[in-house]
Amino acid sequence: MATATLLISAPDQRGLVAKIADWVFGLGGNILHADQHTDSTVGLFLMRVEWELDGFNLPRAEISQAFTPLAENIQAQWQLHFSDTVRRLAIFVTKQDHCLYDLVLRQRSREFLATISLVIGNHPDLEAVAHSFGINYHYLPITAETKAAQELQQLALLKQYQIDLVVLAKYMQVLSPDFLRNFHQVINIHHSFLPAFAGANPYHRAYQRGVKIIGATAHYVTEDLDEGPIIEQDVIRVSHRDAVTDLIRKGKDLERIVLARAVRLHLENRVLAYGKSGARTVIFD
Amino acid sequence: MATATLLISAPDQRGLVAKIADWVFGLGGNILHADQHTDSTVGLFLMRVEWELDGFNLPRAEISQAFTPLAENIQAQWQLHFSDTVRRLAIFVTKQDHCLYDLVLRQRSREFLATISLVIGNHPDLEAVAHSFGINYHYLPITAETKAAQELQQLALLKQYQIDLVVLAKYMQVLSPDFLRNFHQVINIHHSFLPAFAGANPYHRAYQRGVKIIGATAHYVTEDLDEGPIIEQDVIRVSHRDAVTDLIRKGKDLERIVLARAVRLHLENRVLAYGKSGARTVIFD
Amino acid sequence: MATATLLISAPDQRGLVAKIADWVFGLGGNILHADQHTDSTVGLFLMRVEWELDGFNLPRAEISQAFTPLAENIQAQWQLHFSDTVRRLAIFVTKQDHCLYDLVLRQRSREFLATISLVIGNHPDLEAVAHSFGINYHYLPITAETKAAQELQQLALLKQYQIDLVVLAKYMQVLSPDFLRNFHQVINIHHSFLPAFAGANPYHRAYQRGVKIIGATAHYVTEDLDEGPIIEQDVIRVSHRDAVTDLIRKGKDLERIVLARAVRLHLENRVLAYGKSGARTVIFD
Amino acid sequence: MATATLLISAPDQRGLVAKIADWVFGLGGNILHADQHTDSTVGLFLMRVEWELDGFNLPRAEISQAFTPLAENIQAQWQLHFSDTVRRLAIFVTKQDHCLYDLVLRQRSREFLATISLVIGNHPDLEAVAHSFGINYHYLPITAETKAAQELQQLALLKQYQIDLVVLAKYMQVLSPDFLRNFHQVINIHHSFLPAFAGANPYHRAYQRGVKIIGATAHYVTEDLDEGPIIEQDVIRVSHRDAVTDLIRKGKDLERIVLARAVRLHLENRVLAYGKSGARTVIFD
Repeated sequence: MATATLLISAPDQRGLVAKIADWVFGLGGNILHADQHTDSTVGLFLMRVEWELDGFNLPRAEISQAFTPLAENIQAQWQLHFSDTVRRLAIFVTKQDHCLYDLVLRQRSREFLATISLVIGNHPDLEAVAHSFGINYHYLPITAETKAAQELQQLALLKQYQIDLVVLAKYMQVLSPDFLRNFHQVINIHHSFLPAFAGANPYHRAYQRGVKIIGATAHYVTEDLDEGPIIEQDVIRVSHRDAVTDLIRKGKDLERIVLARAVRLHLENRVLAYGKSGARTVIFD
Repeated sequence: MATATLLISAPDQRGLVAKIADWVFGLGGNILHADQHTDSTVGLFLMRVEWELDGFNLPRAEISQAFTPLAENIQAQWQLHFSDTVRRLAIFVTKQDHCLYDLVLRQRSREFLATISLVIGNHPDLEAVAHSFGINYHYLPITAETKAAQELQQLALLKQYQIDLVVLAKYMQVLSPDFLRNFHQVINIHHSFLPAFAGANPYHRAYQRGVKIIGATAHYVTEDLDEGPIIEQDVIRVSHRDAVTDLIRKGKDLERIVLARAVRLHLENRVLAYGKSGARTVIFD
Repeated sequence: MATATLLISAPDQRGLVAKIADWVFGLGGNILHADQHTDSTVGLFLMRVEWELDGFNLPRAEISQAFTPLAENIQAQWQLHFSDTVRRLAIFVTKQDHCLYDLVLRQRSREFLATISLVIGNHPDLEAVAHSFGINYHYLPITAETKAAQELQQLALLKQYQIDLVVLAKYMQVLSPDFLRNFHQVINIHHSFLPAFAGANPYHRAYQRGVKIIGATAHYVTEDLDEGPIIEQDVIRVSHRDAVTDLIRKGKDLERIVLARAVRLHLENRVLAYGKSGARTVIFD
Repeated sequence: MATATLLISAPDQRGLVAKIADWVFGLGGNILHADQHTDSTVGLFLMRVEWELDGFNLPRAEISQAFTPLAENIQAQWQLHFSDTVRRLAIFVTKQDHCLYDLVLRQRSREFLATISLVIGNHPDLEAVAHSFGINYHYLPITAETKAAQELQQLALLKQYQIDLVVLAKYMQVLSPDFLRNFHQVINIHHSFLPAFAGANPYHRAYQRGVKIIGATAHYVTEDLDEGPIIEQDVIRVSHRDAVTDLIRKGKDLERIVLARAVRLHLENRVLAYGKSGARTVIFD
């Protein structure tokens, strides 16, 4: 039973829930989930509405056009998604394999609906892992001199494979503003509880600071490093008995779980980032 | 800015969100929050909708009557609440004071809107605490012989003080079915992670079993002891280093927080219990 | 730098820490970790002491004999382990692959020191997974009629492969008392927060009961089903929005992590089960 | 049954556990708890050992002198405490009452052993609360001009009341280096998960950043603001539905619990801060 989902943000005004629900119902749609939030600090209305396509009076191809007049009337920004669309993912890696394995195994056990079409690594280490699951691996090493050229190559691959979403699965390179202007649907896992320990070596710095809890953060990638909208975070308790290697080990479990949750929330169209800095997200879970 | 809130459950059918949102909007209401859930295992639609009274075209006293035709049409069970209604609470206690103090202090710091009108204890110990906050205390000791008569006395006090909600704040007596038939809005805090360690002495049994985590559970009270609909639960990690007294101490923090959250959720009309056994709740948070 | 570890339990008496530390130091041992606990409810002293073998005045083969007089003097039960011993694991599975993958990948990334020598399944489904990592897979289907014979076959394999520890990684069969009398080092993952929802279908029952938190429990297997000493537990928050399938998905993350932690604690000789019912454990972490 | 506790840090060397345990045992002491940790990154041995005074061959007054030769021999820094010493606390407050109430009620229910001798406020608001529990309240308002003089007044009160520990219970002033040089046993509660959102208005900044988890941190106060050794931290999940006022409310629960745990750990002599920057702690729990 396929569904359609609208993610909508609009200047807050009276009657938006009714107008949108009416529009769906008037075309015969059965709403399965409707969730709405108003951020009164910025006067923004945000809504997610999902309805059954079965029984809906419009074919898929005409829904966008049919919704446009209402959207314009309420000055909305909006996305339309269908639940049976199989999004195409590219995973960027370096040497650590735990997030790559985790995403592939979850995809195979159908925790989320997607195709993992491509793995790109700036080291050759994980080629065998990708191949063991029948996924193409492209090795694109990066130095300061080659970065611009290699990013063009990465973008060409994303186009060739028709990629919808890039997941940085412990990819130890910073994407350039140029890259992000050409492809901006990118989720990263940062190995700290942001904004604590932004930047390099968070586990070493967490050890030095003697924190009692460490965390991981999945966020959309923006040009402001480690400042992108946060999708999900989680934490685990540590103690003086934990050496840096223990923090890294415990952190890997967090990284796996937090990244997987974020990818799943994105693929189920449950995340709306908003605000001029883009720093906040609504998670319709 | 007062609001009205409808809590609605109805047999699931096409168009319920639109019908309800339309009804609010058609009368000029600005919806602040609309949240909806369908339990497909029982075919039940559950919704909470909250709108501003300012600008609404009906006076409060006429809203119920105006909603009745739609409610009958969709075979709904429903409640209507106003956000500025000050509910009147009675707190039942025995000897432990931590939940009593906690609720009174939260009420005083306006974490929730209510009047704590009355404390009833089956021991005299906490009379001084109640009086220190200017709250009336009624000491009604209970034995097997006096229980029926004392419960009648309790019910008379609830009527006299026009109580809307009874909170069992570590009240070490079981309310009889007779009591509950006469007054059923009762929230209890159970000092375990139900259904683990239902019944007496959960901390001692948790110690014996060597669990690594303990919990607390706030639930509505029903005739089935420890089986009422769960409103909130939380847990804390323990270890072999924790003696029973440590479990009790750690548990008190859980009890305070879990009970306070449950009372607050109830007072904000965010809890809908449903199902023939009444065991499940939707928490619109 | 290899270490020796003693796990000791003895009737509590004055001077045990000093006697044991003295014995290690008197033989030139540098204590890296010493942790001790007294369960005063049963009058039992429990200790873990780990020291460097480098500089110790006895060869490994003579340590047990040298410790015996002190152990007898204090009526201790004790185990001696060396940190560089590579324990041999057998993993029992049915159809679900997430715990199997998880354990193999952690072993490969050296989160714990062990060899996974053997996978035994009562279904053929996971043979390919085992083989993809070069691990032998034995398919031993079990029915009520064949159970006794197949368990003999399992025991023969454990002997043949010189297995030290069996891990039940979502193995959906109950080991018989006969099996356990012949091989008792067995760790199981139970997909609930024991003692809540012991027995079958815990996620379905958790859904029915409307709990707000679910858990998983790793424990040593004893003849009393779901009553073995608990090694580790963890939990995750759920809501009415989670269907049974969501509970299962969230639970799989718990199962993976809780089982892996328990296996690691066991392999690092940090777990001491004690008590006549065997229900309690000391975790020296 | 009173106990003695030694907290010891010393350059790491072979035999320290044995030497210290021997010293206790040689004088007839029954060790109840012995816990030890080595920070190999700085070559430091840290130990807590607690033994029964009943049966010990030295009167309390002679224990320090008797331990000194061993301490000098191993170049140790050390503290000796007795479990029945009633420490004298001063609580510094501003306007918020939740941590003050919490500490007083816990002290009254004997969660920790101490006398709350004095409350000092830079506003008059909480005088009534202190008096309701029979505790003296001193109102010392602070401006940029009067700060130095008022701190001298604070120090005089600490001396007059023979205060052992100052607890900053949401005290919205920074203690000067001069103050700390004269009195350095000070625990503060910071309303964020340090090092995230150090400084002012952490809840507002957490909201702006859109974090999914907030925290609180209890730490010893040093001249480096928000950089003192961390004793305890805890966190709670938040969502887009939480406005700043909700973060503040949720944070108050964290603040209460985290501060109370830290005070208790300190009073039970379970905290050892070490390192030249003083940033790390060992928590012997």
